[in-house]
Amino acid sequence: MKLMRSWVEGANSPDTDFPLNNLPYGVFSVDGDEPRCGVAIGDMILDVAAMEAAGLLRIADDLVLDVPFWNEVMELGPQAWARLRVLLLGFLVEGAESTGIVARYLVPIAKARLHMPLLVAEYTDFYAGMQHAKNMGAILRGSPDLPANWLHIPIGYNGRASSVVVSGTDIHRPLGQTKAPDAAAPGFGPTKRLDIELEMGAIVGTGSTLGQPITTAEAAGMIFGYVLLNDWSARDIQGWEYQPLGPFQGKAFGTTISPWIVTPAALEPFRCEAPAREVPLHPLLKSHQPRLRGPRARGAAAALSSGGYARVLFD
Amino acid sequence: MKLMRSWVEGANSPDTDFPLNNLPYGVFSVDGDEPRCGVAIGDMILDVAAMEAAGLLRIADDLVLDVPFWNEVMELGPQAWARLRVLLLGFLVEGAESTGIVARYLVPIAKARLHMPLLVAEYTDFYAGMQHAKNMGAILRGSPDLPANWLHIPIGYNGRASSVVVSGTDIHRPLGQTKAPDAAAPGFGPTKRLDIELEMGAIVGTGSTLGQPITTAEAAGMIFGYVLLNDWSARDIQGWEYQPLGPFQGKAFGTTISPWIVTPAALEPFRCEAPAREVPLHPLLKSHQPRLRGPRARGAAAALSSGGYARVLFD
Repeated sequence: MKLMRSWVEGANSPDTDFPLNNLPYGVFSVDGDEPRCGVAIGDMILDVAAMEAAGLLRIADDLVLDVPFWNEVMELGPQAWARLRVLLLGFLVEGAESTGIVARYLVPIAKARLHMPLLVAEYTDFYAGMQHAKNMGAILRGSPDLPANWLHIPIGYNGRASSVVVSGTDIHRPLGQTKAPDAAAPGFGPTKRLDIELEMGAIVGTGSTLGQPITTAEAAGMIFGYVLLNDWSARDIQGWEYQPLGPFQGKAFGTTISPWIVTPAALEPFRCEAPAREVPLHPLLKSHQPRLRGPRARGAAAALSSGGYARVLFD
Repeated sequence: MKLMRSWVEGANSPDTDFPLNNLPYGVFSVDGDEPRCGVAIGDMILDVAAMEAAGLLRIADDLVLDVPFWNEVMELGPQAWARLRVLLLGFLVEGAESTGIVARYLVPIAKARLHMPLLVAEYTDFYAGMQHAKNMGAILRGSPDLPANWLHIPIGYNGRASSVVVSGTDIHRPLGQTKAPDAAAPGFGPTKRLDIELEMGAIVGTGSTLGQPITTAEAAGMIFGYVLLNDWSARDIQGWEYQPLGPFQGKAFGTTISPWIVTPAALEPFRCEAPAREVPLHPLLKSHQPRLRGPRARGAAAALSSGGYARVLFD
């Protein structure tokens, strides 16, 4: 993929995570001031909240970037998301006009504190990676066999939305009840089997209507962006509590997400074919696009919903 | 229990659900006006939002009853909840002063439309009833044996908060994937095994701190009120999808709650001893109060959280 060049020098470095092609969305503060929306470019953050307040950037009738979350932008829908990206590219591309004005709104990432980039209303954890599903079967059930349903439908459960926190937040080692298979009675104490699960979190940006299904074709357009996600897991607590209702307190003491939301537009060039299917999939579940390369293809996946009712069907 | 008498005649009827002892909280509107907080008394609703606006009822520095949910009252905490109940009893008890003024704020329930009484941030479904757990084992697993953990810890899972709706809301028969044990492949269509689960929902009114446990002694004081709850269930969808991560879409198409929140203060006279324990319970899980009589003792239980992080341990 060809990297676009920016007049922000750090964005052209081969080492940067944030070339002009990326432009991820976050929430930042400097020296304890009010957290607000910003966009990463190279080693800088573009203070889009201040640009909006100054009348330089307008994507809705009201201000939507002066708050410590991207939910108000999400609610504007995919056309507004596309318009915002076009405006940002225009401001930051090499050869842009008015670079002197825009440069006043750049803040070094090194000086900023990063916060949760969105308000999470619901959090669904999908069991999307085959290798992960086999590993978990071996860890919790002593067998790497896939569950009978696994090849036919997306298996998932509702996680605890209020314990989704931004990377860097301290996580307490959880206390809980555990029982070794040969123990007469369960014990209580700090987990001895703390584990991580590296997942890709899809942020569902638009709502849906209770009782009305969403097709796989519609689902893609509802995704505002992606984050990396660590689904912290206490395997000993989980192993004792999860039958028959699934993971609960062993997974609810903290879920960490990356502070930057990477957009579908930025990831589009990395699309690739999904692995071949072992059994035919119901037509309603078939994807209309090839899957993304990367963590989701090999790991688990999660969906963080900003509004209500979203049910995303993953192929 | 002795019923208190009110000057609101309907509250003294032997048939009423809402004698002065009860005073449940709801959200109502009349003729399409703005939904707001109200309190049921006999066949009437006391428009406490209008009383607060008129300066007759004040429980916080700011107005907290002029919104279509009770969450702002919840956030004030248990002392404010107790103060509100004392004020309401004073307004409505037989022999009260100023009944002429208060009477102006009574609206017939028959003329009102009832709405969701709170904003639900999280919804946890507990597997709290032994008979229910045995029935579900028989329905889904062919055996009424309790899960190994059931007598030792509260088993539950996170439900879908955004599909909790008020009683009377139409629920669509959900579509989903199902598979009969002898079928070669799963099918797709409307559920053929729609079921109800009558539960008691506990509304957790105050928040907690991520990483900090809550004791059973603290938990009771955090409960703002109780509602009846129907955990609609599509058993054929649930039976196919729930291994190993628990109930998901088979339970997420709608959860109905009653429009009136009944307070712990109103239920206090109905406390009774819990059934005897079959195995010793870990000291941390022991209740400091006898359990409530009623649906929770025999059915399942759910917790609806208005804020973040709440983890209530039920004995």
